[in-house]
Amino acid sequence: MIESFYPPQRTLMGPGPSDVSPRVLAAMARPTIGHLDPEFIRMMDELKQLLQYALKTKNALTMPVSAPGSAGMEACFVNLVEPGDKVIVCQNGVFGGRMAENVRRFGGEVILVEDDWGQPVSLAKVEAAFNANANVKALAFVHAETSTGVRSDAQALARLAQANGALSIVDAVTSLGGIELDMDGWGIDALYSGTQKCLSAPPGISPVSFSERAVAAVKARTTPVPSWFLDTNLVMGYWGAGVKRAYHHTAPVNALYALHESLVVLQQEGLEQAWSRHEQHHQALKQGLEAMGLALLVDPEYRLPQLNAVVIPEGIDEARVRARLLEQYSLEIGAGLGALAGRVWRIGLMGHACNGKNVLLCLAALEGALIAEGVELQRGAAVAAASAVLAA
Amino acid sequence: MIESFYPPQRTLMGPGPSDVSPRVLAAMARPTIGHLDPEFIRMMDELKQLLQYALKTKNALTMPVSAPGSAGMEACFVNLVEPGDKVIVCQNGVFGGRMAENVRRFGGEVILVEDDWGQPVSLAKVEAAFNANANVKALAFVHAETSTGVRSDAQALARLAQANGALSIVDAVTSLGGIELDMDGWGIDALYSGTQKCLSAPPGISPVSFSERAVAAVKARTTPVPSWFLDTNLVMGYWGAGVKRAYHHTAPVNALYALHESLVVLQQEGLEQAWSRHEQHHQALKQGLEAMGLALLVDPEYRLPQLNAVVIPEGIDEARVRARLLEQYSLEIGAGLGALAGRVWRIGLMGHACNGKNVLLCLAALEGALIAEGVELQRGAAVAAASAVLAA
Repeated sequence: MIESFYPPQRTLMGPGPSDVSPRVLAAMARPTIGHLDPEFIRMMDELKQLLQYALKTKNALTMPVSAPGSAGMEACFVNLVEPGDKVIVCQNGVFGGRMAENVRRFGGEVILVEDDWGQPVSLAKVEAAFNANANVKALAFVHAETSTGVRSDAQALARLAQANGALSIVDAVTSLGGIELDMDGWGIDALYSGTQKCLSAPPGISPVSFSERAVAAVKARTTPVPSWFLDTNLVMGYWGAGVKRAYHHTAPVNALYALHESLVVLQQEGLEQAWSRHEQHHQALKQGLEAMGLALLVDPEYRLPQLNAVVIPEGIDEARVRARLLEQYSLEIGAGLGALAGRVWRIGLMGHACNGKNVLLCLAALEGALIAEGVELQRGAAVAAASAVLAA
Repeated sequence: MIESFYPPQRTLMGPGPSDVSPRVLAAMARPTIGHLDPEFIRMMDELKQLLQYALKTKNALTMPVSAPGSAGMEACFVNLVEPGDKVIVCQNGVFGGRMAENVRRFGGEVILVEDDWGQPVSLAKVEAAFNANANVKALAFVHAETSTGVRSDAQALARLAQANGALSIVDAVTSLGGIELDMDGWGIDALYSGTQKCLSAPPGISPVSFSERAVAAVKARTTPVPSWFLDTNLVMGYWGAGVKRAYHHTAPVNALYALHESLVVLQQEGLEQAWSRHEQHHQALKQGLEAMGLALLVDPEYRLPQLNAVVIPEGIDEARVRARLLEQYSLEIGAGLGALAGRVWRIGLMGHACNGKNVLLCLAALEGALIAEGVELQRGAAVAAASAVLAA
């Protein structure tokens, strides 16, 4: 007989999921009600407003896809890409590669613009790709690359797409709630995000928003959307405005309670305040890491505050360090992914997990683990450096 | 400013979601941990074993899709149907129609076998369809039609598929945990279910299982699976056996805690005991409904105990009756769907919601609502009839 599962209480400072606040966990455990209950529909309306606030958009097609971020990505590509469509995909980490794979699976033609892992998307290369290819339907890129800790210039890239008559499709999984994001102000056409990064809700839902131009592109398709579950024409019968909702699929009721609560928390703090909290704690972490002689992979100009890629010193057994943090302090930090596997640790400071207590814990624990690995360090120096920033 | 959402406490006796037990809600609110945490991977192994128990299968490809039942349906069809493939789809309600739509969107050729709503799938018609069509790749049907309350003979249909060299694809969303289901014993090749019916976990996850024959069919594809999120070749890198799990997408951690707990509850009760509990309470409900002069749509031979389609008497404002139940007793029953809209109510007795207290509440409340609509009934007669069955 298998017994009930009681997870350990971790501190989640990896690339996501991040620590979920007790308020959000409590919301998730409230009684399940029907997906067509009038009270649930009222909650859906609020949820849409909250998502519009967080994304800075007025888009009517703004809704949570009932599945994780990868399905949100797929919702964008499966609706917007038809066989033969040309799509410029920018790849400077894992998630750009996944976008390209999406385009190919829906019969699109990928024009790949590659940049080194740890570098932002190059505007010049994207411009060159537009100049070299006529009739590009869309430009797809990652705003905040979770695999490297790089921020690309979403505003400039979206403008470039618009200037070339193309739609922009943006991965905002890790950016939403952690750094500035202004969907309407920047002219982004399609965007997907996730709940488990800077919103600090449990993983499983993907906020998605389409501009009027993107909606028009879906309506103009000449082939059916090759997905029933993700077809926005059908989904919006349920998530559209008004009291009369057509059943499409059964909404993940309790996961949506959690997302609603996480957005209420964000609205109470204020978007701009959340962004500056991420920046401030990143600065503290950075000072502490540097006091330990550790370097960040990414140039300060492009660095994400919420995802810190730390270069692993030579001769360190990186998996043993992570295991020690997990065993001694129940602290999770992330391994490197793809081209950066074994080369970096990824330390997240996301949403509810982005606080001074976690910065100090992480630095003290990492310092101890490095000393245990034989690195010569002065105990307490990292915490001292970070504390000075936090006190400022 | 939008405030926290506090849902009302309902009694859910519609077509799903069903009432979630406090044990399952509590599990869902446990601390989120990482999707690659060793403790989470241990939980995943247990979850797979529990699903194998509930489905009566040894299939290695048994896992929960990270999205609701409609995505589980899509996971079956997107992996198993290639352009040009012939699929016999049985339609005797809403969900057979959705299956056909799936086949078409993935380029398959639908051979539709239609039966009236309220009737089971006709074996003779399916046999005729096999005889009339060579090289049929798969037979797809719904085991328990949630839109009508009909059980089809899954064992005989799966055998017919096998005899004709075709795969069987079975919708077991509403059957799992409520009536007998024996994936391996019946020779079913691909099956999807849902969490929000007789498992009584919140909606949002879809258990899926593929036989060796189904896995071989996916491997033998000549075209890529037109979905990255649902491609079983990729998903099983994460859900496959062994400690080394390749990241595919971030698992919906807390929703999987809930599913795990709901399956522990099922295992503790025992599968066969759960089936007979559904049957017993259905008999009590049926006696009570008949004492009110209400008829069930479906012939007893094909009737589902967990989903009772009740014929609405002439001249009744059915929406007003449901609204009264919701307002006076916070009790949800379901409206008719599709061809049965306005013609039936759907009363669910699913999982945790299938108990004597709910049978009595539903009968008493419905009796009161019908009297308020002007129907001449003897107060208490329905409850008396049901109580007699429950006491037996």
